Amino acid sequence: MSVLSSYVRGGWVTPDGAEGRPMADAVTGEEIGRLATDGIDMAAVAEYARRTGGPALRELSFHQRASLLKALAGYLREHRDELYAVSARTGATRGDAKFDVDGGIGVLQVYASLGKRELPASGPWLDGDLAPLSKGGTFAGQHVYTPLHGVAVQVNAYNFPCWGPLEKLAPAFLAGVPTIIKPATPTAFLTAELVRLIVESGLLPDGAVQFLAGSTGDLFDHLGEQDLVSFTGSASTARRLRTHPVLAARAVRFTAEADSLNCSILGPDATPGTPEFDLYVSQLVTEMTVKAGQKCTAIRRAFVPSALVDAVVEAVREKLAQVVVGDPADPEVTMGALAGLEQREEVRRSLKSLTDAAEVVFGDPEHVEVRGADAERGAFLSPVLLRGSADSAAVHEVEAFGPVATVLPYSSTAEVVELAARGQGSLAGSVVTADPEFAREVVLGAAPWHGRLLVLDRADATESTGHGSPMPQLVHGGPGRAGGGEEMGGLRGVAHHMQRSAVQGSPDMLSAITGRWVPGSARTVTDEHPFRKYLEDLRPGDTVVGGPRRVTEADVAHFAEFTGDTFYAHLDAEAAAANPFFGERVAHGYLVVSFAAGLFVDPAPGPVLANFGVDNLRFLTPVKFDDELTITLTAKQLSPRASAAYGEVRWDAEVVNAKGEPVAKYDVLTLVAKRDA
Amino acid sequence: MSVLSSYVRGGWVTPDGAEGRPMADAVTGEEIGRLATDGIDMAAVAEYARRTGGPALRELSFHQRASLLKALAGYLREHRDELYAVSARTGATRGDAKFDVDGGIGVLQVYASLGKRELPASGPWLDGDLAPLSKGGTFAGQHVYTPLHGVAVQVNAYNFPCWGPLEKLAPAFLAGVPTIIKPATPTAFLTAELVRLIVESGLLPDGAVQFLAGSTGDLFDHLGEQDLVSFTGSASTARRLRTHPVLAARAVRFTAEADSLNCSILGPDATPGTPEFDLYVSQLVTEMTVKAGQKCTAIRRAFVPSALVDAVVEAVREKLAQVVVGDPADPEVTMGALAGLEQREEVRRSLKSLTDAAEVVFGDPEHVEVRGADAERGAFLSPVLLRGSADSAAVHEVEAFGPVATVLPYSSTAEVVELAARGQGSLAGSVVTADPEFAREVVLGAAPWHGRLLVLDRADATESTGHGSPMPQLVHGGPGRAGGGEEMGGLRGVAHHMQRSAVQGSPDMLSAITGRWVPGSARTVTDEHPFRKYLEDLRPGDTVVGGPRRVTEADVAHFAEFTGDTFYAHLDAEAAAANPFFGERVAHGYLVVSFAAGLFVDPAPGPVLANFGVDNLRFLTPVKFDDELTITLTAKQLSPRASAAYGEVRWDAEVVNAKGEPVAKYDVLTLVAKRDA
Repeated sequence: MSVLSSYVRGGWVTPDGAEGRPMADAVTGEEIGRLATDGIDMAAVAEYARRTGGPALRELSFHQRASLLKALAGYLREHRDELYAVSARTGATRGDAKFDVDGGIGVLQVYASLGKRELPASGPWLDGDLAPLSKGGTFAGQHVYTPLHGVAVQVNAYNFPCWGPLEKLAPAFLAGVPTIIKPATPTAFLTAELVRLIVESGLLPDGAVQFLAGSTGDLFDHLGEQDLVSFTGSASTARRLRTHPVLAARAVRFTAEADSLNCSILGPDATPGTPEFDLYVSQLVTEMTVKAGQKCTAIRRAFVPSALVDAVVEAVREKLAQVVVGDPADPEVTMGALAGLEQREEVRRSLKSLTDAAEVVFGDPEHVEVRGADAERGAFLSPVLLRGSADSAAVHEVEAFGPVATVLPYSSTAEVVELAARGQGSLAGSVVTADPEFAREVVLGAAPWHGRLLVLDRADATESTGHGSPMPQLVHGGPGRAGGGEEMGGLRGVAHHMQRSAVQGSPDMLSAITGRWVPGSARTVTDEHPFRKYLEDLRPGDTVVGGPRRVTEADVAHFAEFTGDTFYAHLDAEAAAANPFFGERVAHGYLVVSFAAGLFVDPAPGPVLANFGVDNLRFLTPVKFDDELTITLTAKQLSPRASAAYGEVRWDAEVVNAKGEPVAKYDVLTLVAKRDA
Repeated sequence: MSVLSSYVRGGWVTPDGAEGRPMADAVTGEEIGRLATDGIDMAAVAEYARRTGGPALRELSFHQRASLLKALAGYLREHRDELYAVSARTGATRGDAKFDVDGGIGVLQVYASLGKRELPASGPWLDGDLAPLSKGGTFAGQHVYTPLHGVAVQVNAYNFPCWGPLEKLAPAFLAGVPTIIKPATPTAFLTAELVRLIVESGLLPDGAVQFLAGSTGDLFDHLGEQDLVSFTGSASTARRLRTHPVLAARAVRFTAEADSLNCSILGPDATPGTPEFDLYVSQLVTEMTVKAGQKCTAIRRAFVPSALVDAVVEAVREKLAQVVVGDPADPEVTMGALAGLEQREEVRRSLKSLTDAAEVVFGDPEHVEVRGADAERGAFLSPVLLRGSADSAAVHEVEAFGPVATVLPYSSTAEVVELAARGQGSLAGSVVTADPEFAREVVLGAAPWHGRLLVLDRADATESTGHGSPMPQLVHGGPGRAGGGEEMGGLRGVAHHMQRSAVQGSPDMLSAITGRWVPGSARTVTDEHPFRKYLEDLRPGDTVVGGPRRVTEADVAHFAEFTGDTFYAHLDAEAAAANPFFGERVAHGYLVVSFAAGLFVDPAPGPVLANFGVDNLRFLTPVKFDDELTITLTAKQLSPRASAAYGEVRWDAEVVNAKGEPVAKYDVLTLVAKRDA
């Protein structure tokens, strides 16, 4: 059998003469190919990522990397049938394959969109606001994110051969960090197809992605403080990698996502006949059977109010009886095979531990009727429903990584929160209830043990993505047994691949470093109104000063009458005097910002196309009658859009009174045309 | 000699008959006391924190915990002379003691203020915005932080016996997590005094702080997924703790802050005679001598343009010659002793490795003139300045943890960035330059290897807190050799003690769980205008709907004339038609929000005292002439202030046109009086 090629240092490499580890078709047992990385110089692979991939990625802006992710998603989407075809050999039904393939493409799309929408067009990504560090304002701090100069090593699990690599690649790539993909043995042949497509797309810079079709060899010995390892798989492997001497000595970033004893909790309100009862039952069956239960987020512990256990077990059994196990390529089949015979043996072993503590109420671990395939050569297993007592330690500790769940009774909200915690850390949990108070208590009570918690009810059932689906916008990971890691979570996942550094300095220095004008730093006032400048010509610091304009009693009275805003503080001297903040009549805040706009605006057609918003407006000193207002408007941040004839410009606006006291501070958001669009 | 007492499980405990590890006066060598924790049941100590301290802390709100931190800061400030007195015995001058004691009190104050200002009065702390997860809006996600239910175990370094425990306590306490303090042997007697004061203050709930006057015994064997270990000290101990089998198996959160080879970089512009040259020299001498150089952030590598090395060495030597080493209690003394004789031996050993690669240009590692103390019995050491070549590996790897630094030449910006990175991860770095371009290149280039970078120049020199001072507002920690951890950083440090969980559900469920009204969830409209409700009576979801109001051409023309905002898009039909977003004349955004206020405001005096701001205002659909506006204003979040007769209420504002298209969305911020204040 042929040994799969690795994609390293810009080319496909096949080891000579290595025997390799075999991979088998999950359905037929037939050998598909072998894995070996003998002879690959792992130090050189890591260095290739650092010297070639890293610089090429950092040369691009966030927006450019986002565009490449979008293009890659499009390319993979076009070619997804090729992945579906191979996917069946991992035991996956078409539905399972979509979960894996389309799910992974979806992660690329979400990160592409986040990158364009939320990350800066140029300059470092800033974390949080400016931290003032001095009274005089000459010294402040700003946290910045810069991309690590190392490589992200993915060590993946066998259950999601496409989604796994892509969900890790997307945030790393967007951050500007190259990736080495190490698939798990049983399904590496599918990941190899994925990588083949990525390489064939020609979209990603050289060195941005490498692929090891087999062991990582001594790669970990060559990692350092700029590298990351993100592991998905068993808790025992997580522990071994976490304590790798080089990783520990060099504080290499390590994140783990491990299988956990995830729970789903039925609310006491969700009695038979309610939509929530049916949702609970359907969801449990889905979680047991999708990917033949080989999801690290799948429900293992089904907590049900004692009085409802019989009804739940009965309803789940009925639905499980309709599951058709067999050849995943057969459209009648609703549950495919496990990833391999070894995996099936492992599930059977776990089931032995569980059945000491719980009773099998559906399925036979040793036998299953199989449609269109050989039940012995293929890694088929019946769905197995258990019913047990929550007192047993095993039900909170032993995970059967297959189509297996245990129904467990509980008697109070406090008890079920405590039972959920006995999983010692889970990736995902769900609460199925229409009772907001129950949901609140369970969610906030169980949250310290969970990375993600879903509340399912009739209101969100149609649109809910379900208990088992990690979402790119949300963190994926969980404490303790779930690995203690965090992946995705929108931009949080990008930040994991970057160094957060506090930069301290004067406002002028912070402006120069961040590329964003910082209050307190120099302003540039010239004869040319900055609204007359095209995006390419504007610079952070470009400023217009307008005013002064006097605000009269007549102005305020007129504005009240015109807008209908007759709040007493503007019109009723006696009542205003009793207000703890004003002491006398004051101008409307909206009048202040309206006058301010009148003072800074440049009326003729020009590059400034629109004011599309205002951020962080604070009224700081009340404006009394006959106060005079002066506005200073300074370009703060320029965000050209690659695909548009304009960009966003954020302006710092400060309105002061005649004494120089700040009256209002805010950001004005405008769209400004490019000169050369 | 007496054995120090530990403070555990609500009382002071002294082991019977244990011999213990001796602590010595750094100045006289005299034994001060002994450390032993024999017989203390570590499992019970951890459990006491979890069962007593944790629930008591979680019972309090963020604001209440912040108040306690503030009160504790006040109490310690009152008693700080007691700490200064003991501090001298650690070798610290009065200045050093202030750095340690006042610095620690300052951290408490900053966290107290952050807690009140930035954290919610009730409900969970939310991370980021709502993440929409569906087209129909019935399904969304929100990240929440909940306090870990475990204990924060501090393993501290000897150099900051007061600041160290307090900088870790403050964020843990504010998060709602109890602490166990483990001091380092040489200076544990000072930490014991600090803990005595904390206990005597009677301010903190029982179980919130425990103190181990000696070894942690088997404490780590009893930690789990809800616990944290924050270690400060040597890289080798960090490595050992990080790979502790229980920590690894249970994914116990572990953060390390280790000494690093921090650098300070002089800009090529900072030639002799410039303020920056003098600042560089002064800062280097300060960093060498404060705490006798025993700061994990102190400068070890002084990078200087080749042409300026002679001048820098000469200037530093001159300043070092004025340093008076001796009894720290003597006001003439400017540098005290190291923490102990062992520490001095360790520095001398490191110096031997360094002097193979670098030349001593000031000081004698084996001899120093000492004022008012015995040079041999006390742990005194001369400041030692080295001059070497950056090619040597030792200067980037060997840290002499005392008054020691090495001047190293560089020849280009790219080279010095590369040299800074050779420290393989540092806590702090500084760049001394008046050249913003040089500062930008060095800071962004070196940032991936640094937790904090200071730019020092004439502009911030007066107010700068300096290279070596971690600030509570900024992250403290660094990658690789610096431990790979992060502490403080304002609220970031609080988050480290909490679990971040993604919660998914319908808007109504998310509102119930977060206590904050989520768009899409139910609104309550009654006959009573919500502006007539006091803070205690308002509920998230309380809503007023105002309008419709027609916006006429005359309104727009009048507003333009009144405010002076005569932007062409409002007045010039032809020019407006050419605008890519409008196509015809449109109303001013400020007119829309002014009219909206007129539609929702309730004019008579009442509980709503003021509109103090607006957040996240976005104009979504242009308002054309004769469009009709309707505003819906819904109470979103209530933030009562404990110490005021009012609180903040954030309202969701949505303006739509007659077609129901969103015209503007924003948050209105008001102050609302309490009924019972």
